[in-house]
Amino acid sequence: MMERVFNFSPGPATLPLPVLQEVQQNLLALPGVGASVLEISHRSKTFEEIIAQAEANIRALLNLPEEYHVLFLQGGASLQFSQVPMSFLRGTGRSADYIVTGSWAKRALAEAQREGSVRIVWDGKSDNYSRVPKRGECEIDPNAAYVHFTSNETIQGVQFPAEPETEDVPLVCDASSDFLSRPIDVRRYGLIYAGAQKNVGPAGVTIVIIRQDMLEQVPDDLPTMLNYRVHAEHRSLYNTPPVFAVYVVMLVTRWLLENIGGLEQMHAINRQKAQLLYEAIDRSEGFYRGHAQPDSRSLMNVTWRLPSEELEAQFVKEAKEAGLHELKGHRSVGGIRASIYNAMPIDGVRTLVEFMEHFRQRHA
Amino acid sequence: MMERVFNFSPGPATLPLPVLQEVQQNLLALPGVGASVLEISHRSKTFEEIIAQAEANIRALLNLPEEYHVLFLQGGASLQFSQVPMSFLRGTGRSADYIVTGSWAKRALAEAQREGSVRIVWDGKSDNYSRVPKRGECEIDPNAAYVHFTSNETIQGVQFPAEPETEDVPLVCDASSDFLSRPIDVRRYGLIYAGAQKNVGPAGVTIVIIRQDMLEQVPDDLPTMLNYRVHAEHRSLYNTPPVFAVYVVMLVTRWLLENIGGLEQMHAINRQKAQLLYEAIDRSEGFYRGHAQPDSRSLMNVTWRLPSEELEAQFVKEAKEAGLHELKGHRSVGGIRASIYNAMPIDGVRTLVEFMEHFRQRHA
Repeated sequence: MMERVFNFSPGPATLPLPVLQEVQQNLLALPGVGASVLEISHRSKTFEEIIAQAEANIRALLNLPEEYHVLFLQGGASLQFSQVPMSFLRGTGRSADYIVTGSWAKRALAEAQREGSVRIVWDGKSDNYSRVPKRGECEIDPNAAYVHFTSNETIQGVQFPAEPETEDVPLVCDASSDFLSRPIDVRRYGLIYAGAQKNVGPAGVTIVIIRQDMLEQVPDDLPTMLNYRVHAEHRSLYNTPPVFAVYVVMLVTRWLLENIGGLEQMHAINRQKAQLLYEAIDRSEGFYRGHAQPDSRSLMNVTWRLPSEELEAQFVKEAKEAGLHELKGHRSVGGIRASIYNAMPIDGVRTLVEFMEHFRQRHA
Repeated sequence: MMERVFNFSPGPATLPLPVLQEVQQNLLALPGVGASVLEISHRSKTFEEIIAQAEANIRALLNLPEEYHVLFLQGGASLQFSQVPMSFLRGTGRSADYIVTGSWAKRALAEAQREGSVRIVWDGKSDNYSRVPKRGECEIDPNAAYVHFTSNETIQGVQFPAEPETEDVPLVCDASSDFLSRPIDVRRYGLIYAGAQKNVGPAGVTIVIIRQDMLEQVPDDLPTMLNYRVHAEHRSLYNTPPVFAVYVVMLVTRWLLENIGGLEQMHAINRQKAQLLYEAIDRSEGFYRGHAQPDSRSLMNVTWRLPSEELEAQFVKEAKEAGLHELKGHRSVGGIRASIYNAMPIDGVRTLVEFMEHFRQRHA
């Protein structure tokens, strides 16, 4: 086997090794099929079983009630930024409430503003997007078409510890970077969307969880490919879905169920990994300065600064030499970012913490 | 190595074995990278090289002039059915001309009708979609926003031997099922789109070739993800592209260049494969009845009927037992369909022809 590094990429991101091994083993031909998963028809019985299993795994992990549909779409969260307001805002005469916690919430907001009337109910700009709103800080319009929030901001490294309160207004969530990383109270959501490439698979498939009453609101005049109802009616087989990406999602969700034991267990591991890193930051006597305020710290993307940009560049360079890759912060904010999604092993985090200690001793 | 069958699936379809072997070999870690291609950031130098190479290969194969852009998008041809008229028809006060040769042209037409005024310039319905229009049969509106045609109809098995004449009206082509299967005169096209899953890769990436003057017509008020200009400006990296699918496209196009020698050579092989099958049909004394009229016969999807539906079912069943899979015709038209895209080896076609002879001897 070729050497594998610890890959802290923010997404596409590291995947569970047993999943990669199974993909590799069957790449020339799925057992009993005689063709690669890259070559099978999406109308074949083999693929019907794969996509049904992927859905069943997600349903089991989230304890999903019957009235929720699971869709496998394309175009990433970026297309959802438009599809959501095209479906639930445009032409309704109402406005939608957006909670702006960082770069991704801003992108979602910008696309919604193209489609209709939008109200910013909270914006973290004055705090440099270092926190999410506290309970009671968001005053939701009770007539809003929906409330949109970004459960985890990959670039800033802030995460909602719990859903915002929205009373009866449908809650819509971009969960791209923390989907299936912890248990959630699904019944509070009208729609959840997530690009797979952080916690659940490779880039190229977008998972949408949508409640039946939301589905019924979708107007008929949308382009067919942007109509959630069409995809629900065809069980994500209206057109050719990204077969391979769905296959990997099936394997990753099976790994979550069988190897990890479910989302409670995954959450405990994710808390432990994040805690190791935040403790290393907190005991560094100001050498490492975390970006997120403690109550809003992300369990998925840990972001921090060093005393100078030169030291940050040095940190990234030496870390890479030590087998710790992709630690550079996003180009828009700088600093360091360690993305520690579900599949990042705790050994990777421990190795990074050791490296941080040594680096500090040499450079503080 | 596991046993591989001959897979005549209409798409996703068989891929070149050397491509699958390279994917498999590097699946746990790309050489010198230490991470799988499923795990690398789309902003990494590794992926920038992969996508640049995929584009360079396509440019080389098509001998693409500078003023054409190559985009790697998501959503398949089905999303292009809408994106094309949203970009070039809606709000222009003009109409678009559609040539209707089969099931896929009809789908493209239906989405265009949602976006603006559309004129059907030719419809193969009276011939049961068994042929494409002859030269001179289509009277193009010289003021049309564009002319849309489907170069190959996967379901009916009819293919344009050459592009329809459109004078100065921009030509838009759904080339999903014959892209890179033969040389084309690219300068005749304003836009070509193709889902990858027939000739150039796995499902999950859509290739768009668009001329600069078309790009400049795209309105600013589209959802950003549906704006060709944004994708061109960001070289398909506006959002996370389907990394793995682009990687396989890079490998398949390299195989076309290096193992096959280019599109002239590929076309010669494809002609030879199709000829073997059509000859077997023609010499069967009416036992096998080809659907397409001889001048419109597809080199990609060969479709035919047998004397009864019972015999067709028997044919599919016995063929599968002989290692010849996925020969059942599309559910909407019935019969038999052999999809023999670029990667179907001539041995597969020869084996199928032998099977056809034996089947006929036993059942005629």
